[in-house]
Amino acid sequence: MTSERARFQRGVLVRTDGEAEAAIPSMGEIGLQQFAPYLLNRISARWNANMAEALRAHDMTTTKMRILAVLSISSGLTVNELSVFAVTEQSTMSRTLDGMEEQGFIRRQPRPDDMRVREVHITEAGRSAFARVWPMVYEMFVRMFEGIDDDEYQAFAKTLHKVLANIRRHDI
Amino acid sequence: MTSERARFQRGVLVRTDGEAEAAIPSMGEIGLQQFAPYLLNRISARWNANMAEALRAHDMTTTKMRILAVLSISSGLTVNELSVFAVTEQSTMSRTLDGMEEQGFIRRQPRPDDMRVREVHITEAGRSAFARVWPMVYEMFVRMFEGIDDDEYQAFAKTLHKVLANIRRHDI
Repeated sequence: MTSERARFQRGVLVRTDGEAEAAIPSMGEIGLQQFAPYLLNRISARWNANMAEALRAHDMTTTKMRILAVLSISSGLTVNELSVFAVTEQSTMSRTLDGMEEQGFIRRQPRPDDMRVREVHITEAGRSAFARVWPMVYEMFVRMFEGIDDDEYQAFAKTLHKVLANIRRHDI
Repeated sequence: MTSERARFQRGVLVRTDGEAEAAIPSMGEIGLQQFAPYLLNRISARWNANMAEALRAHDMTTTKMRILAVLSISSGLTVNELSVFAVTEQSTMSRTLDGMEEQGFIRRQPRPDDMRVREVHITEAGRSAFARVWPMVYEMFVRMFEGIDDDEYQAFAKTLHKVLANIRRHDI
């Protein structure tokens, strides 16, 4: 149980008939600091809370910022696709897009080769709005990864990709 | 700009007076898949959404589960401490604790050596309630990290610790 190679300490139960049964580790045996979902939740919540506060000065929400960020890379996504990339529920998305269309930051239009599909496009005003906040977002990102060199960052991103693929595959 | 060692492609602006000025990369130059905050948000949101759904069958919320998880390791935390570890806003925390106290899962009592401090303690009923859901939580965790060996996991956790320390230090 103290093997360096074991990820967590696993207890082994011995039943009354003498058979050994592997028990799952308890939360205490793993410990919060080694439980990645806990660490991920804390980091994500902190980033989002700090981001929300910093964006208030720009009269913007984190949801709107994420939508502009995604569309600045890939204009013309469907509402469904945008919901996934901007990590926003579809009900919230529709409502938010209404507001952004009023602000002139996006426009919704049918796809030319399939008029049933509605695409969301960023406008020049939307690009400008995002460009105004991007330096601040980038600065927060740089500080978040201070002391983490390129090799470590690449390895980190690689693991994040595997985790995301797992979550999507299992629909855990 | 295509150096393997550069984390992102950085443009260099040459001003009209001939001086070179390093520009920050754009969102497009980094790309969503290399932007860790995006990956962290997606993973965290997916984990929480899937967890919420799985816990419904146990008549429990993710917030309550996290509170029980933390207290099962460290019973006797203050409401403030619990808010941090359980990644819950303090207003939500007080309300949630009221409900959990009614359910008999926790009790709040003054700290013996400082009666001004209120500690939150888990009860046996609370430990049992958590024990009922823990196998499911653990299983989701195992699936999330499938294909990721111990070395990779340890490196991942180490980077997460650095990131969390950075976010807390800067109060980014």
